[in-house]
This record gives sequence, C-alpha cells and structure tokens, in this order.
Amino acid sequence: MFKYQVDEHIYLAITEMRHAEALHSVIVENRDHIGQFLMFARIQTLEDTKSFVQASLSNFAAGTEIPTCIWYDNQLIGSIGLRISQANRSASIKYWISKEYEGKGVMTKCCKAMINYAFRELKLNRIEIRAIKENVRSRAIPERLGFKHEGTFRQDVKLNDELADSSVYGLLAEEWNSGS
Amino acid sequence: MFKYQVDEHIYLAITEMRHAEALHSVIVENRDHIGQFLMFARIQTLEDTKSFVQASLSNFAAGTEIPTCIWYDNQLIGSIGLRISQANRSASIKYWISKEYEGKGVMTKCCKAMINYAFRELKLNRIEIRAIKENVRSRAIPERLGFKHEGTFRQDVKLNDELADSSVYGLLAEEWNSGS
Amino acid sequence: MFKYQVDEHIYLAITEMRHAEALHSVIVENRDHIGQFLMFARIQTLEDTKSFVQASLSNFAAGTEIPTCIWYDNQLIGSIGLRISQANRSASIKYWISKEYEGKGVMTKCCKAMINYAFRELKLNRIEIRAIKENVRSRAIPERLGFKHEGTFRQDVKLNDELADSSVYGLLAEEWNSGS
Amino acid sequence: MFKYQVDEHIYLAITEMRHAEALHSVIVENRDHIGQFLMFARIQTLEDTKSFVQASLSNFAAGTEIPTCIWYDNQLIGSIGLRISQANRSASIKYWISKEYEGKGVMTKCCKAMINYAFRELKLNRIEIRAIKENVRSRAIPERLGFKHEGTFRQDVKLNDELADSSVYGLLAEEWNSGS
Amino acid sequence: MFKYQVDEHIYLAITEMRHAEALHSVIVENRDHIGQFLMFARIQTLEDTKSFVQASLSNFAAGTEIPTCIWYDNQLIGSIGLRISQANRSASIKYWISKEYEGKGVMTKCCKAMINYAFRELKLNRIEIRAIKENVRSRAIPERLGFKHEGTFRQDVKLNDELADSSVYGLLAEEWNSGS
Amino acid sequence: MFKYQVDEHIYLAITEMRHAEALHSVIVENRDHIGQFLMFARIQTLEDTKSFVQASLSNFAAGTEIPTCIWYDNQLIGSIGLRISQANRSASIKYWISKEYEGKGVMTKCCKAMINYAFRELKLNRIEIRAIKENVRSRAIPERLGFKHEGTFRQDVKLNDELADSSVYGLLAEEWNSGS
Repeated sequence: MFKYQVDEHIYLAITEMRHAEALHSVIVENRDHIGQFLMFARIQTLEDTKSFVQASLSNFAAGTEIPTCIWYDNQLIGSIGLRISQANRSASIKYWISKEYEGKGVMTKCCKAMINYAFRELKLNRIEIRAIKENVRSRAIPERLGFKHEGTFRQDVKLNDELADSSVYGLLAEEWNSGS
Repeated sequence: MFKYQVDEHIYLAITEMRHAEALHSVIVENRDHIGQFLMFARIQTLEDTKSFVQASLSNFAAGTEIPTCIWYDNQLIGSIGLRISQANRSASIKYWISKEYEGKGVMTKCCKAMINYAFRELKLNRIEIRAIKENVRSRAIPERLGFKHEGTFRQDVKLNDELADSSVYGLLAEEWNSGS
Repeated sequence: MFKYQVDEHIYLAITEMRHAEALHSVIVENRDHIGQFLMFARIQTLEDTKSFVQASLSNFAAGTEIPTCIWYDNQLIGSIGLRISQANRSASIKYWISKEYEGKGVMTKCCKAMINYAFRELKLNRIEIRAIKENVRSRAIPERLGFKHEGTFRQDVKLNDELADSSVYGLLAEEWNSGS
Repeated sequence: MFKYQVDEHIYLAITEMRHAEALHSVIVENRDHIGQFLMFARIQTLEDTKSFVQASLSNFAAGTEIPTCIWYDNQLIGSIGLRISQANRSASIKYWISKEYEGKGVMTKCCKAMINYAFRELKLNRIEIRAIKENVRSRAIPERLGFKHEGTFRQDVKLNDELADSSVYGLLAEEWNSGS
Repeated sequence: MFKYQVDEHIYLAITEMRHAEALHSVIVENRDHIGQFLMFARIQTLEDTKSFVQASLSNFAAGTEIPTCIWYDNQLIGSIGLRISQANRSASIKYWISKEYEGKGVMTKCCKAMINYAFRELKLNRIEIRAIKENVRSRAIPERLGFKHEGTFRQDVKLNDELADSSVYGLLAEEWNSGS
Repeated sequence: MFKYQVDEHIYLAITEMRHAEALHSVIVENRDHIGQFLMFARIQTLEDTKSFVQASLSNFAAGTEIPTCIWYDNQLIGSIGLRISQANRSASIKYWISKEYEGKGVMTKCCKAMINYAFRELKLNRIEIRAIKENVRSRAIPERLGFKHEGTFRQDVKLNDELADSSVYGLLAEEWNSGS
C-alpha cells in the first residue's frame, strides 16, 4: 500500500474507496467515542461514509487535503487528515482513533508523522489542531507535541445537537525544526 | 438593487458580475491599504477579480457564502462577506473598505447589519471575525461590536510574502440578542 | 434580507434554499390556481421545489436569471423572476402569486419594480411577458403596464396535459423611460 | 455519415467537431450575409466556432438540440438546428445558408426535412421560426411552408450593434399533417 | 432520422435518449444471448439503460464514441458503437444483435458500414474488434471481414461472474482500402 | 511521503501536483528516450505535465488509476501507473524510466511491486503490459516477470508521427501467486 510508516506496527495510508467498508465499521463501533472528536460524528450509513471518502479524494486531487487512515498491524483503527491552505502555507490536522487503541500513544505518533510530512515535505509553515475543549485526552495530543494554545472558541462545534467549545493550538515550522 | 439598507447612505448588495469592474477599480486604488485586511490582497488583474466574483457567486448558489459589496451613495466602496457553516450553525465575516471611507463608522455599521442578518434571518449561533493583529483599526471593529477576543493565531496569514499574526474574535447569538 | 422594497408591505428577495419550504407550501396550496400561470405547475414534491430553487441559483450565479420571491408583511406569497439575454439586451419576466393576494395590485407593483431593475440597473432594452391567453387576469398585468401585444402563440404551453395559447407582450426601454 | 437525406444533392448531418474548420470557413466567407440571420453573427475566430460546436454537442447529449450542418454534393454550405422543449412538446428552427446557395430552394427543403423529423419522429406539436423582419428572403421560408405569422417582436435581436425586429411564425403538427 | 443506410432494410442511427425504452426491451428479451457479447450484460433496469445511453451521448459530444442502434425495417434490433482514440488514429468496434436477427449477415453488413465510416470519413488507421473466444458466431464477423487475428487475451472479460478469454482482431486502413 | 518501498533505494509515491516540476524536468531530459515508451511522448510544456498530473489525480479519485512516480534515493527518475477496470477485475501497467537509470533492474522491481499491489491488495485477476514491439528493453520486462505474450497489435500506437506495433503481455493472479 502507499503508506507512511510510523513505527513497526502503525502506518498511515491515503484513504481509498475500497477502505470505505472497513472505515465505516470502525466508525459505527465507536460512534459515541468519536462524538468527542471533531469529525465523522454525523455519519450514519455506509453511503455517508462513501460520500465522505469521495469528497476527501476530490480534495486530495485538488491538492487541499491529505486524507489517511491509520492502520495498526494491518487493521484500520482510525483516521488522520491534513487540510491545506497553500496561500497561507498552513494546514490543520483532524483525527480520531478507535477507543480500543486510545491511550497507547498511537495518535501522538501519527500526528508527529503528519507534522513531519507537512513541514518537511510540503514545506508548510504553520499547523493547527482544534480539539473539543472538554475532551482532555484529545487536547493532550497537541500539548504533548509542543503546540501553543492559541485560543478557545466558544460554541464552535455542533456535535449531537449540542454546541461545544473548542481549544485551538498552533505550531510553527521553526518551533518544530528546533524542537525535534 | 437587491440590497440590505444599512442607513440612508449605505447599503449592502449581493455581488454580481456586472459589479466586477467597479470592484476592481476600488481594489486597485486601495491595494496597499487592502493589504492590511485578510482578503483581496492577491488580486492583480480584472480577470482575477472576475474569477473571485464567479467563485463567490458559486458559493452563494451552494448556500455557503453571502458575498456583498458595500455601496455609499450608490458608489461601491468595499466589500463584506459571510462564510457559513450550516453544520456548526456558525459563520465568519470578512471585510475591507476603501481608505477614503475609513474612520467614519461605515464598516462597523455594515458588520452590524451582517450580524443581524446572520443571527436573525439565517438563525446562526456564532460569528467569527479574524483581523490582522497589527491592524488596530480592523481589530477595533469586533471589539466595538462586543465580540470576545478568543485567540491569537501566530503566522496565520500570508500577505505580500510576509506572515502575519491574526486576532480571532467570536460573538454568540445570545450575546447579541441580549445586547442590541 | 437582501431585498428590493416595492412598497411598505411588499418586497422582492433573491430566492435562497432556506426559502424552499415556505415556497413549496404556497405552491401546494395554490396548485390549481398556479396552473393558470406559466411556471411551477409541474412541481409535485418538496424535492422538486428544491431542485427548482437550486437551478435558479445556478442561473443567478451564471448571470442569466434574477430569481426572487414576493414577500408581503414578511410572508412569502409568490415569485417573480427575470430571465436575461445579455447578447440581445433583453429579458422576460415570469410570475405567479397566491390566490389570496390576487386582485390587489401586488403583481403589477412587483412587475414595475422588476422592470425598473431591468431597464435602469441592468441597462436592458426590451422586456417580454408571456401569459396564458385564457388567463385574463394574468394578461391584464402587461396591458396595464403599457406593454404592446406583439403576438399570440398557438398551443405554446403544455399545462396539466393540455396545450394552451399564449399572449406575448413586449416593452422597450424607451417606452418605459418616457412613460413612467 | 449519419445523415438525413433531403434530396439527391442535399443532406443534413449532426454537426461534429471535425466539421468545425469547414463550418468556420463558410461562416467567415459569408459574414455579412449571415449577419441577416439570427445565428452565428457573433463568431469571430475558429476557437469561437469550436466553442459553438461543443456547446451544440452538449445540448444534443442533453436532448435539447439537434444541431446539423447542411451539405450539398458533400460540401458544407450552411446549418440548421432544432431547439427542443420536451415540456411543451415544441421546438424552434434556426438556419442560415451560404450566399452562393441562396435562392435555390435549398433552405426550404431543409426546413421541410427538419419539420418532418420534429413532428413525425420526435412527436412534437409546435414549431416556431423567428426571422429578422427586414430579411424578406428569410421570412419567405416559413411563409412558403404554411407557418402562421403569430407576432412581431420589436427590437428583439441585437446584430452588429443594432437592434432588429423579428417576425415569429408558428406551425402546428395538425396543420402539417393535414397539409403535406 | 439521422442515419447511415446500410442496405434497403437496415440502417444505423445515433442512439438518442428517446430510444432508451426500445433499446431496453431488446436487451431484456435477449439477456442470455447478449451475455455472450462484450457489452450490455450488466444492465438490469431501464435506469441502467438510460445511464448507459447518457454516458454514450457524453462520449459522442466529447468525440470519443459513435454510439448507434441498429434498425431493421424501422425496428431496433441491436447496437454497434465505435470507441475512438484520435491520438493513435484507431478505434474499436463493439456490437450485439437480437437473437432473432442473428445468422442473416446483418451484423457483418453493419460492421462494414462502421469500418467505411471510420476509415473513409474519420480517416482513422486501425480498427480493433474484441470477441469472446468461445463465441464462434461473434468471432466469425471480424474473420469474414478480413481482420487479422492479433492475439488472445486470457481471462480478459468478466461476464455473469465468470472470466472469459477474448480474441482480438485488427484491421488497417491500407488493408481495407486495397480489399473492398 | 506516502509511498510503496520497493527496496532500500527505490520507492513509488502517488504522483502529486507538487511533483509536476521535477517530473517535467525528467521528461524533458529524456524526451527521445521516452519516445520509445507508450506514455508521455506528447508532453511539451510544463502546463502539459500539470494537465497530465491533474488528469491522473482525477482518475485516482475515481478509483480507475494508481499514478505513481519512481524515486531513487529521493530523486524522481520515472513513473509507473496502474489503469484499473473493476468490472473485469483487470489492470494495465504503463511505465517509463530515465535513460540514466535504465539497465539496472529498477523497472523490473517497480513492476513487481505494482503487480503485488494489484493482485494482493486490490485483488485484481489480470494484468496487461503493452510495449512497443521494437523496444526490446521495454519488452524484456514483462518477459522477465513471467507474463505470457498474448498478441501483437499492428500500427497500434502513434509516436512522433509514426505508427508502431505493440506487443501485448498478460499475467493472471493464479500465475503470480504460484510463481512468486
């Protein structure tokens, strides 16, 4: 597969349509859990997942998104994507992971890989991560990676009919280059 | 014209292709000045302006943008637009105004009109304004209108080959409803 | 709203997708009545109305149509649209109004507004109105506004599986400018 | 070729992109002459002709147009097209012919073929021909074919920066069926 | 109709949407039989047939396909299409015919017409026919027409969940010109 | 990068727009050499290369192509792509490599990787390679990999205004699975 090897167990692979069913299964199993993240919470049917994948692929073809799935020992366990603004040389990272694999540092490693990709290969200058403020585990990832907390957006995201605040974190290429 | 009357001199009108030449003239005359705002700074030719207008009209047709020009005594003097996320019931406002009309409260009045439109007609819940941090005059607008400063994004915007920090402000429907 | 104020009660507003449900309700309530007009008679479901609105918005973005709804005391009561041929500097007006509001001069006022818009703002030269020949009330509008009867088209329009003749009226900018 | 044989010398063939150069040559040679007809007068370059052909082919694929060229002894000498409204079971015919072949009854024969195609194969009910009022030769065609003069549209068509009146003629299936 | 007259009974006509129902009927009646050919075997519903026709028309508008139906005494009995590569000046022919009309030389005559069209009008240089290896009758057509057998592709085509070998035949313009 | 590691020096990476300039340089340097292969020979300008990349990305998004560049010690040295027919569970491989890297087994290794990807990950059943018959080096690749020679297509490909024969090779999943 066309992949970015993160460690001996984990790799990221560009999301393809043939992954839609595996992706949908993990979303369905983790619906409540994913609801704490910024993405995917509105997906209901396999058709929704396929539309989501098709839109991501169109964005990839347009150069505005790097959509990937996270694989652990060849099993799909989550996703991580990069949304890119070439004009501002910046990107944002969005991610979620199956509950079962949480708390093992997988997400942090995957983010690190995406950051390396964004700064070193795509030559971007700034990366943003936006997490639900209440989701301590999700916020811990940018904090652990040296992102600066740059703001708190009130009622920024609508999830399950409720509006949640989000915490926004930023990282600059110069910080990453010096720091890792 | 299909317009939103702001006061006896000022109205906002949905940007149409027939406005492209007037719009382009004001952009060209104000290039240095506009460079301090978040939009339009990359437009060079009339073709660029027309492409910009066409993209805005497509967004309007898709329901994701309300693109308007600001008219003062029937003269085009700037623009103000609403980018909408129905999913999160939120929007952001972007604006710029000709140097000649700055400092007369025009922009503040236009933003107020857009906020009323967003909260009362579109029933949105949150509005964001992002201004270049160094542009005190631009930042004064959300501050004057009761927006909360929610964050400062470092190196967020590339303008004239330099990266500038931006100040992000948020306003909730409940704040506006109670406050105006 | 972005509107064209016709009088203290009536305004025209660019049709947006969020109006689709209100628009559909009026169409459904007035199906038999609207069947006498040239438009909308083939709409059955809310999906049809939404497709119709989406097509109109695409035409608006392409600069070939000004689709508006007619509002009376903030209630949607009909629609009036302008189809534009820039090449020939001409346009046609199509309209219908809820039965309840018929006979009060509302439609005549709305047409007058559209004609002003077409001649004075869009700088067009000719406007055409085509009405079902049998629909005396509909034909009365162009006649009252000074349009010349320019032709009668036999079996021109298929409505409810029947073919109806249409009366075609034309008005030139020079006539309107001198006459109103 | 996929054609409609009109007589032993003349046939109509669906316009294809490979005909664009031959078509463009005839348009260029006949520019002043064609200016008297309703179509093609705005074409300047071969690119314009190709765009015109491409648009016609898209309409053909959408079922709204039958675009054909007129061939005389295997030489392209003009064009004739049918614009179709399935909803109203009607169509309009537009045509022009090279000056050299005018006055020989070619155009009348081609129209007759198109009318047969429209009424007998496409099962349409009404055909309209619109000619420049001043162009006596062009108007003679519908008159000769039994069309009824249904109206005169003032300043209906802009040709070479002048506005011309048009004469509109209609023919019903029942008239053709009984009459030919 | 716009057609290519093959003999006094048979003609080919560009496939139009209005033929979809007649086409679908013949496909349904001949499903088992058509399964031996390379095309159409996956069509189930009238919607499938319409999608197929729409795709063919888009290809025709793009200049990459000449899709036709075969008519015998004004009855639709099969289809034959040309897929074109302008870059390589080559094309392939695909065909099927209703069981009832098989064995009468109809298909051979239709192919001959298409070959003449491709070599003499479209000025192509090479034509390919690919037939299911097991379908002796289908293979007999290129053999009878002087095509050279150029290869056998193993498990080339999936039909009814089985993989079939195909026989590929080629014919060059120089061979046809000298030979017929 | 999202890549398929072939050996310690070589990897394949999905072609992205940011690779267009590097890709174009290698094409320009190798124009005569590439002319012996089936692809890219018609590219002249950087714009051509960008159009080619954009078309490949659209195909990737549609699931019909896996377009990759070949990298050797992080330098772009050629390309290899997979065109997929899901309906027939088959694909074809197209490739070219910079002259400098020819004769070192790079291409054979890259094909092997693509074949593994096609059979094991995409679960396809048949792979085709088509090489210019005169290009002995290019033909050696499928022969070395165990493909069966299934046909020779006369005047199949137009390269530099000349028509060349092609040799077509096929490989089945069952052959690969048993043989490697």
